[in-house]
Amino acid sequence: MREERHETRRATVPALEEILYIPAKVLDHGFVRVIDYMGDDAAIVQAARVSYGAGTKRVRDDAGLINYLMRNWHTSPFEMCEIKLHVKLPIFVARQWIRHRTANVNEYSARYSILDREFYVPELEHVAVQSASNRQGRGEAVDPARARRVLDLLRRDAAQCYATYEELINDRGHGKPADPEAPQLARELARIDLNLSYYTQWYWKVDLHNLFHFLSLRMDPHAQYEIRVYAEAIADIVRDWVPLAFEAFSDYRLGAATLSREEIEIVRQLVRGADPDEILPASGLTLRERKDLRALLGLGPPR
Amino acid sequence: MREERHETRRATVPALEEILYIPAKVLDHGFVRVIDYMGDDAAIVQAARVSYGAGTKRVRDDAGLINYLMRNWHTSPFEMCEIKLHVKLPIFVARQWIRHRTANVNEYSARYSILDREFYVPELEHVAVQSASNRQGRGEAVDPARARRVLDLLRRDAAQCYATYEELINDRGHGKPADPEAPQLARELARIDLNLSYYTQWYWKVDLHNLFHFLSLRMDPHAQYEIRVYAEAIADIVRDWVPLAFEAFSDYRLGAATLSREEIEIVRQLVRGADPDEILPASGLTLRERKDLRALLGLGPPR
Amino acid sequence: MREERHETRRATVPALEEILYIPAKVLDHGFVRVIDYMGDDAAIVQAARVSYGAGTKRVRDDAGLINYLMRNWHTSPFEMCEIKLHVKLPIFVARQWIRHRTANVNEYSARYSILDREFYVPELEHVAVQSASNRQGRGEAVDPARARRVLDLLRRDAAQCYATYEELINDRGHGKPADPEAPQLARELARIDLNLSYYTQWYWKVDLHNLFHFLSLRMDPHAQYEIRVYAEAIADIVRDWVPLAFEAFSDYRLGAATLSREEIEIVRQLVRGADPDEILPASGLTLRERKDLRALLGLGPPR
Amino acid sequence: MREERHETRRATVPALEEILYIPAKVLDHGFVRVIDYMGDDAAIVQAARVSYGAGTKRVRDDAGLINYLMRNWHTSPFEMCEIKLHVKLPIFVARQWIRHRTANVNEYSARYSILDREFYVPELEHVAVQSASNRQGRGEAVDPARARRVLDLLRRDAAQCYATYEELINDRGHGKPADPEAPQLARELARIDLNLSYYTQWYWKVDLHNLFHFLSLRMDPHAQYEIRVYAEAIADIVRDWVPLAFEAFSDYRLGAATLSREEIEIVRQLVRGADPDEILPASGLTLRERKDLRALLGLGPPR
Repeated sequence: MREERHETRRATVPALEEILYIPAKVLDHGFVRVIDYMGDDAAIVQAARVSYGAGTKRVRDDAGLINYLMRNWHTSPFEMCEIKLHVKLPIFVARQWIRHRTANVNEYSARYSILDREFYVPELEHVAVQSASNRQGRGEAVDPARARRVLDLLRRDAAQCYATYEELINDRGHGKPADPEAPQLARELARIDLNLSYYTQWYWKVDLHNLFHFLSLRMDPHAQYEIRVYAEAIADIVRDWVPLAFEAFSDYRLGAATLSREEIEIVRQLVRGADPDEILPASGLTLRERKDLRALLGLGPPR
Repeated sequence: MREERHETRRATVPALEEILYIPAKVLDHGFVRVIDYMGDDAAIVQAARVSYGAGTKRVRDDAGLINYLMRNWHTSPFEMCEIKLHVKLPIFVARQWIRHRTANVNEYSARYSILDREFYVPELEHVAVQSASNRQGRGEAVDPARARRVLDLLRRDAAQCYATYEELINDRGHGKPADPEAPQLARELARIDLNLSYYTQWYWKVDLHNLFHFLSLRMDPHAQYEIRVYAEAIADIVRDWVPLAFEAFSDYRLGAATLSREEIEIVRQLVRGADPDEILPASGLTLRERKDLRALLGLGPPR
Repeated sequence: MREERHETRRATVPALEEILYIPAKVLDHGFVRVIDYMGDDAAIVQAARVSYGAGTKRVRDDAGLINYLMRNWHTSPFEMCEIKLHVKLPIFVARQWIRHRTANVNEYSARYSILDREFYVPELEHVAVQSASNRQGRGEAVDPARARRVLDLLRRDAAQCYATYEELINDRGHGKPADPEAPQLARELARIDLNLSYYTQWYWKVDLHNLFHFLSLRMDPHAQYEIRVYAEAIADIVRDWVPLAFEAFSDYRLGAATLSREEIEIVRQLVRGADPDEILPASGLTLRERKDLRALLGLGPPR
Repeated sequence: MREERHETRRATVPALEEILYIPAKVLDHGFVRVIDYMGDDAAIVQAARVSYGAGTKRVRDDAGLINYLMRNWHTSPFEMCEIKLHVKLPIFVARQWIRHRTANVNEYSARYSILDREFYVPELEHVAVQSASNRQGRGEAVDPARARRVLDLLRRDAAQCYATYEELINDRGHGKPADPEAPQLARELARIDLNLSYYTQWYWKVDLHNLFHFLSLRMDPHAQYEIRVYAEAIADIVRDWVPLAFEAFSDYRLGAATLSREEIEIVRQLVRGADPDEILPASGLTLRERKDLRALLGLGPPR
């Protein structure tokens, strides 16, 4: 499909055309590739001008308007852009991803088709302990010897489960049985033996506003590493596609921070010269909030 | 924008490119025009093959597969196509239209901008009485003299309201007051005097599955005439865009009928030769259901 | 319905039971009343504990957990509460309200039924000019004499349009014609003459997460006054219903502020003692952003 | 929670109160139980009367109105009822279930918490071959000896994977390590070794319209057996909750059939006495469509 070229009157983004259909590798067997897209930075501006009409006659360049929309949560103009991705990803990642409901999905069906023998095994340095601090994510990497043992176990189990899967579906291609004596078990049943590390794939289509929401949650350091690398691969694509919108997103969302009512009050006092070591402990902030606020303001640990 | 041509690797539909950006007139001042689109019939097939994978290796042409998807409510492949329309429409039509929630909308804002002096006045032959039968829609047209009186009243009131609107916003263009002595009332307030017949406009972006749902509800004879003509104009566009999918939609949705459990039982008996005048009155169907079933089966009124 | 009492095992909120079915007046003819609700503060906590399971065994009181969820955008537990409201509101307010798509709506249909002679007329002090600063909302109130003239025009036009509406539908109750000689025009057509100030009503059902989103947008000072008062009436209800969640919402959303990447950098410098009059003009912030940041930090205008 | 009783003014359904919080067993370790609900049959009727107002003054009993709504796809009144379920289900079932996007979900998080040693093993009689006819579902059961071998393999692999999981998380309760020498691997990583047959659980909240849509797809004979039994368990609950709506759903959706434009034409001819063996082969219907139509009309196989 990549070779075919067509003439179109639609908004076209040369930088995205360059990478259309080309998979960007993610994890050990996964990828993300762009299948289609609609709109560009100018389409966002155009939609905003429909809404705000003659009222925005005032000269303001496109970047300024896009920043304004992003800052003030005028989200509907970003919904006017749409992208369709083909993604190959481990099932446990797919389970997190699918929680984003405002998207269209066509997933490879293991009821119809046979899954390939492809499963995710982490890199040594990503084998880490349960984090003590956030009760959810990963803490420090385990020592390499232990990590190798972990990877061996993961590989051994995945291999054994696939062997079972193959025996059950009993297919040597084109629906012919590998063992003519044995039944070909229903695929929908055989697949339940596979591990969550196995890869699936899907087409995923989403508008830019909802994609930004996905990215802001999944590029977050609290997101699981294995989905974060997909979000980062998609971010690279979005930067090529709608550079002005991506920069606005980066400044007003990704790199932004929200202060609560009480945190604002504290910052006001700090700006007026108050001593953080005095006012923070006296505030109603939790320990975690105080720590996060100190980090945000570059204050260093309490004395 | 229409003059610009770009080279793209994306799926492109020449028949739709032909009409891109060109308004199709609807009602007295409205229009529908395509601003952008994503995908084509082949994109539906491609998405279906991702889902059903090697399982659909069996030769089946695209039309057959699309019919199969439509018939069996495999809706997600149709979600892989997207279209963006620019629509100008009366506010009372917009109020019905917006009830379709699964779409993206950027509407002209009468808080920022000034609405034009354009309001909808029906054609003489569409001025009709309240329907006695369905308690909702229109019945027969009223006589032309009465109808003219109706139109005169509508025109008179809309003109008077716009005169008030103009006095209130007090704008002679570019924000300059028409009457330098008078205040320029907030636009968000002045517009509340306008009638529901006034035109608004919006960008409306929707995927093909949800567009078909919109069409099936709004092309229905029970839909109000004024939204039906918009649905019909969009149907013409969709026919150009995805001819195979539109034909499947036409056969399996628009032209289809659903029989209830009891209606199926009755049809079974009729096919075996039962007399409708005997079994219908003895059935549990309501009067309306019996009438509709007779019409569907081409049976004519009861003896 | 208010008189009937039932026994239930469901989560029940006495403070909300007190006001169930009782309309809270809004604007001149509008109201909001609670018809039904599901869940309470404890239901949010319970849902959170399902998700985070044994991992949250650590003692943390409900208020602390709810604050944590709100702060970290763990939104799904808030979706576990649902409320159903009956709202009477002007059509121009309904047009803004309906843009919130994640809700269920049953609106009074003017195709079936006859609208009452009730239209919104602002209070004198809310008759204001177009704002010069934000190009959208209202600025200062106009002088009372002018304002009275505005209200007279609004009343005159609404009265005339309703007189036309009455003539067209020609109904004196129970579908009997008021004028036996004249036709009863289709209601769907007659209503197009009415002004946007006329009242409609609907049942509106929404989950708490999406309701908070609605409130954060519609309680904002930039929202139009006439929808803001509805949002405020609903906020009072929510405070009775889920007091802990509402307080968290109030602290971490309503009263919160988001700083962009660059604003964070500036605040860091200010906290370290930098002079705002030096660093703000040298920053990349727009004039509006600088003004907003000064206001947020209580800095007063530049020297 | 079951023991607590409260007084409420809300619509209450005694039959549902009876089973509130009580798990209905599904599969070997799963269940469905009602946690909360909003509305009843009367709430549907009430919402419909808001929409259609005085226009439905005509006496029509609640059952008749609900049938009318169901038949004519007036879906919004059904959205006025809401139910919250606690479901325990195998991961491969959860993966199908979550595709229904219009619902609220709080799933047990295996990043925070430890999954129990519970996995699904089918009953002997549900171990079946890949269906030859529909290329997706199950065909005939395999012979018991083979089936036992299948179950043994499933059990063996699941047991081994759980043993690995336990070794990796290295937890003997309350976060204490089972082996003090070994690291406690991050839970988000350890769980990727588990099979798709393992159980998860969630709170799932949905409105009645979308629940009916879920049921119509998942009670269908083409749905995988393991999700069908959940749908059937939920159907039993819905029958208790809103008996009139459920009966309408049963007659006008579950037991209904849709005829395409061409099938209607054929049925018309059959009703007039045409010979199916003559007109069906001459029609444009596919082989599958002809077979389905014969079955629907009780015609038996072609001569």
